[in-house]
Amino acid sequence: MGIESPTTTVMEIPSTTFLDHWQGHRRLTRRLIEAFPEDKIFTYSIGGMRPFSDMVIEFLGMAIPGIRGMVTGVWKGNEWPRPTTKAELLQHWDEATAEINYYWPQLTTKRLLETDKAFGQWEGTVFSFLHYFIDNEIHHRGQGFVYLRSLGIEPPYFYDRN
Amino acid sequence: MGIESPTTTVMEIPSTTFLDHWQGHRRLTRRLIEAFPEDKIFTYSIGGMRPFSDMVIEFLGMAIPGIRGMVTGVWKGNEWPRPTTKAELLQHWDEATAEINYYWPQLTTKRLLETDKAFGQWEGTVFSFLHYFIDNEIHHRGQGFVYLRSLGIEPPYFYDRN
Repeated sequence: MGIESPTTTVMEIPSTTFLDHWQGHRRLTRRLIEAFPEDKIFTYSIGGMRPFSDMVIEFLGMAIPGIRGMVTGVWKGNEWPRPTTKAELLQHWDEATAEINYYWPQLTTKRLLETDKAFGQWEGTVFSFLHYFIDNEIHHRGQGFVYLRSLGIEPPYFYDRN
Repeated sequence: MGIESPTTTVMEIPSTTFLDHWQGHRRLTRRLIEAFPEDKIFTYSIGGMRPFSDMVIEFLGMAIPGIRGMVTGVWKGNEWPRPTTKAELLQHWDEATAEINYYWPQLTTKRLLETDKAFGQWEGTVFSFLHYFIDNEIHHRGQGFVYLRSLGIEPPYFYDRN
């Protein structure tokens, strides 16, 4: 994200705005998971890419582990058996929703602008991690939209985040 | 984005961080445009979706018109002939890059948190528009990645924003 000089103009954004932004995208992704047929979500792919379930498992790997890492500086992946049903994906999804809401108020501006190494690998500000987690989900979810369209199924509305 | 109470915690984020975030994504999209074969970008599609050129033209419709609308409150679409070559798409892209950089410093926190109606249609805060423009590009660019993969072409790295 680059180093900011102390005289840089600062945007004062309510903390909950970022949380709403994240959870709004997560609500849309949840609807996409629901829209996939049970078998296709674990098997269907285009152009040698991963099935959508693998992408969802990746999102889940940045949800609870992501918020905990952003708040505490401790980066630790999920330790559950790999989900094999849509119901399990959705259960983990809802657990992550609650956990993100729980941890969020502890995330300060000071911490957001700190540099850290996410999962011991990616260096950047905590702000850049937050956006990476969200953007990575938007990116691969967009791919899930193509999978669904090519299966002849209408995906949810991209602009609906309720 | 909801109404924030005055006691809500505020995140103080350098203004240039948001600009870098936007332009970083735009740099990646530019690389994807470059990676598409000239004919395929205007014709290739999956599942009855639009060709990637149509998506790029949509992004361009939220670039110069978007930054001008966010800063001035005047929402007005592009008024150029529809691009028909990759070179034209890239030329408009680079013009938009410069225009966004030019207008950006005029975007204040006060304006970011104001409610407006983008293009006379979508009501929300200017902050929500900014993220919508970025997220819409990430979403459809992700779909462009699938098009490219299904054509057997390696897309650029998602995480590279330089």
